Amino acid sequence: MKDRAVSEAVVRRLLKYYRVLNILDNKGVDRISSGQLGKRTGFTASQIRQDLNYFGGFGQQGYGYHIKTLKNEISSIFGLDRKYSMVVIGAGNIGQALAGYPNFSIRGFNISAIFDNNPAIIGKHLNNILVRDISELKDFAKENCVDIGIIATPAGTTEMVAAQLKEAGIKSILNFSPYDLFMEGIIVENINLIDSLYTLGFKMKNGNRFKKSAESEGIND
Amino acid sequence: MKDRAVSEAVVRRLLKYYRVLNILDNKGVDRISSGQLGKRTGFTASQIRQDLNYFGGFGQQGYGYHIKTLKNEISSIFGLDRKYSMVVIGAGNIGQALAGYPNFSIRGFNISAIFDNNPAIIGKHLNNILVRDISELKDFAKENCVDIGIIATPAGTTEMVAAQLKEAGIKSILNFSPYDLFMEGIIVENINLIDSLYTLGFKMKNGNRFKKSAESEGIND
Repeated sequence: MKDRAVSEAVVRRLLKYYRVLNILDNKGVDRISSGQLGKRTGFTASQIRQDLNYFGGFGQQGYGYHIKTLKNEISSIFGLDRKYSMVVIGAGNIGQALAGYPNFSIRGFNISAIFDNNPAIIGKHLNNILVRDISELKDFAKENCVDIGIIATPAGTTEMVAAQLKEAGIKSILNFSPYDLFMEGIIVENINLIDSLYTLGFKMKNGNRFKKSAESEGIND
Repeated sequence: MKDRAVSEAVVRRLLKYYRVLNILDNKGVDRISSGQLGKRTGFTASQIRQDLNYFGGFGQQGYGYHIKTLKNEISSIFGLDRKYSMVVIGAGNIGQALAGYPNFSIRGFNISAIFDNNPAIIGKHLNNILVRDISELKDFAKENCVDIGIIATPAGTTEMVAAQLKEAGIKSILNFSPYDLFMEGIIVENINLIDSLYTLGFKMKNGNRFKKSAESEGIND
């Protein structure tokens, strides 16, 4: 692997390749060319070869890519060959939805606890996950080697909760609050539900002017 | 406005500019230079000028951008100067969380009904929104001019539900199911929660190799 930086767009494309490879592997397909992978993901064959060459190739001229091998390589690039322990902060609507979302644990991302500051809900279980007092976060995170903290608290609390997660030694955050979080020394992924609706609004208004699969930048030094 | 296509990355950057402009406007700030806007969003001044020139400029040399004007222009580009009517399909965990999410209606995206096929929940209210029988979708959508359908049903039902939304004359879909939807003749925005965790995994594993704000492609012809 070359030691260069990778952009958000490359990460998103790799995730699309990974999803298609999983589907094909489950169907028993053995190999795929960059052209075929392009048709299924909306990217050009040369874009795909460029992305995969960057991580060490994996393909052979005239043969294409061996699906199981490529799938495992991408899985390893993303660190999906291990389990992650997560906590959710906030036992409201979004926290409850996340606790009941079966796909997380299937993919190796386990919610080990939910934290809240409301005595009325502390001690209860959401989908078999105990709601604990937020004051226990630090001890719990250290004892249980928590990797990821999910923020599902109301707007206005985001930075305070993020600081508590960082203080507890948690290295990364998935942020569902409507406030975009940027914090030094911790990895953050913001999920902004309103932005998704705004993007729909843009596409509805601008129709044909919107370019599909236009993540055409390469890998940036 | 020039008649060229706009990429996903440009849309995402405009949304970031818009958010910062709203914050500054609320603080009573009157104008901002592209350099200052760059510092607050992580993009270069020239990237920002390029994006905004594409939509007709709005700035003046030596003065910068008038915040209220630029905010209103972006709002108009995104079609945020109107209201949208939405329906949610699926009254499970995610549907319930969406029904209770206050930010949607504040921003002009109103959920007018929830649909499900489970008799045990049809007729009940979630956060004052009536759960209706999915068989009523088509009539309801036509009578209420529904713009957006939100898919919050279990995996395996996505394409069927999308076809029902299209059949009901709904023009765009926000898809929360773990299945990436692509459908001719309807605008789709996929929200893949697992991809966000995979991206966190990638950043945790690859650390410094990940390039922040690396959406460096321009506007593509």
